Amino acid sequence: MPALDVLTLGNAIIDVIAHTDEGFLVAEKLHKGSMNLIDEARAEDLYSRMGQAAIISGGCAANTAVGAASLGARAGFIGKVKDDELGRIYRHDMNATGVRFDTGYADPAGPATARSFILVTPDGERTMNTYLGACQNLSPDDIDEETVASARIIYLEGYLWDPPAAKEAFRKASTIAHAAGAKVALSLSDSFCVDRYRDEFLELARNGLIDVLFANTHEIKALYQTADEDEAVRALREEGFAQGRFVGVITRSERGSLIVTREGTQTVAAHPVDRIVDLTGAGDLYAGGFLAGVVQDRDLVDCGRLGALAAAEVIGHIGARPQRSLKDMAQEEGLM
Amino acid sequence: MPALDVLTLGNAIIDVIAHTDEGFLVAEKLHKGSMNLIDEARAEDLYSRMGQAAIISGGCAANTAVGAASLGARAGFIGKVKDDELGRIYRHDMNATGVRFDTGYADPAGPATARSFILVTPDGERTMNTYLGACQNLSPDDIDEETVASARIIYLEGYLWDPPAAKEAFRKASTIAHAAGAKVALSLSDSFCVDRYRDEFLELARNGLIDVLFANTHEIKALYQTADEDEAVRALREEGFAQGRFVGVITRSERGSLIVTREGTQTVAAHPVDRIVDLTGAGDLYAGGFLAGVVQDRDLVDCGRLGALAAAEVIGHIGARPQRSLKDMAQEEGLM
Repeated sequence: MPALDVLTLGNAIIDVIAHTDEGFLVAEKLHKGSMNLIDEARAEDLYSRMGQAAIISGGCAANTAVGAASLGARAGFIGKVKDDELGRIYRHDMNATGVRFDTGYADPAGPATARSFILVTPDGERTMNTYLGACQNLSPDDIDEETVASARIIYLEGYLWDPPAAKEAFRKASTIAHAAGAKVALSLSDSFCVDRYRDEFLELARNGLIDVLFANTHEIKALYQTADEDEAVRALREEGFAQGRFVGVITRSERGSLIVTREGTQTVAAHPVDRIVDLTGAGDLYAGGFLAGVVQDRDLVDCGRLGALAAAEVIGHIGARPQRSLKDMAQEEGLM
Repeated sequence: MPALDVLTLGNAIIDVIAHTDEGFLVAEKLHKGSMNLIDEARAEDLYSRMGQAAIISGGCAANTAVGAASLGARAGFIGKVKDDELGRIYRHDMNATGVRFDTGYADPAGPATARSFILVTPDGERTMNTYLGACQNLSPDDIDEETVASARIIYLEGYLWDPPAAKEAFRKASTIAHAAGAKVALSLSDSFCVDRYRDEFLELARNGLIDVLFANTHEIKALYQTADEDEAVRALREEGFAQGRFVGVITRSERGSLIVTREGTQTVAAHPVDRIVDLTGAGDLYAGGFLAGVVQDRDLVDCGRLGALAAAEVIGHIGARPQRSLKDMAQEEGLM
């Protein structure tokens, strides 16, 4: 099998996206912008009350792989779906975007393909309610050593800490990658996820298991338990792990992103957008663009610009997958 | 059961929508802007080659019902889905938009819920490839006399001529409606559909079975087999059926619509749009807006304005269902 530039590992989730008003979030006791893990009963209950929805393949790490592929990287994804209607749609979509995705189907007697019920308010903010379903079947057996060792960089989402066996898959993949000389990137996923697994994430980083850390403002503040962004960034730099090849990338919505290395912090402007429709996938696509730059040996600021471009495309429409070629966009903008 | 303002009858179809380039249409030998009926094998084959897709409930007459409901009309829909994953999604979406939809599920041993593979080119034009599946199960038994008789206007799509038994359902519904004093509206659906069933459509109209006829430029020219739009409009007016309460509505994209009655022809401007993303559903939503006006006893030009507003909303995004309340939009624009 040919080598990969970027291999991502995460929960394979179908997004079920509906526009809603703020009142619905209040009625459902949902904290705007959060990701809530829900069980099957709650999934059915919520779905029965939410509005008409668009069904679009998603999942953070998968979105990142699709973004990297759209910028020309050879990308792969490891994640678990069931062989049901939505699982087959998911597989189609990964293949259709040029991402290698050959993880076997989940136990046919087990839960259905995962779905996230995403409520988008008029400000474009999204509130996610995720039923993990078949993702809970992801295990170390799904990590093919040869595939992982062939990748230049592997990217892991913090959400993998949620399904019980996936964490072990995560550890196995990062160990193989480092042994093969590849880089390992981690996304903190969301601030509640950081709250759930803070010590483990810090330990991973401090032990040198992470080469690139992606976080948004909320997540990095949650990691260091501070309300002050500057303090969080300083803590990131001053940490023992802010050394050597380590790169921290902080996305800050319309305020652009920060690239934090031992040498200092560089700022990359956000890419202009006409209108924000749906923020789902902004961080995932930023990471995809950034990693596409890394594997093309671009300097870090250029990597950030590619990330910003990819994020801007995806927030202009419903769903977390690009609707046009990011490579074409990057070429039009003189970034490639 | 409470009475309905608008009851629509049509093929219940899930749209599978992908962005594509013109080259793909050429490679697949597809005529841009057309609707092609395909079998299951072709559906699988085409899907395997097309890009990542958004899955969104559609179907012309169903879209029209959703549009009318979004403008405050009490709307219902009769159409056939199977009790499979996409069929349940379809039912959810109809209920979630406030449209009464209680047609029984299709034969569990029969074909799957219908889907239309819609390829959207960069100009926003859509090319549809429809696998009718469970729609072929729609029969006169699905037409509940009481429901039909309770409606003020029933709306039928020309595409119902395609599945064999649906035509009889169409005839049964229009007979009941007229006996109950309701109006009957027909959409010509598309110019190829007109070519397939021209004589039958003309006969329906000439026999006084149609009170409102919706057509776009291509369709009305196809009906009268002329390349000249003015000639087609003249033919529509001069026809024996352009009499009495009969209203012809011709949609002409950015050139606005024409409302043709015995008294004369009135022009309604198109509603301004920022950017055309996907033309799917423009005609359906125009009809939904127009009918919402009719049941509120608005004058015909106002009905046309409501139609234009509804069409403008839906072409600004992927999918043929409104993403925001059309009533709110109409109120903001001073139309309601």
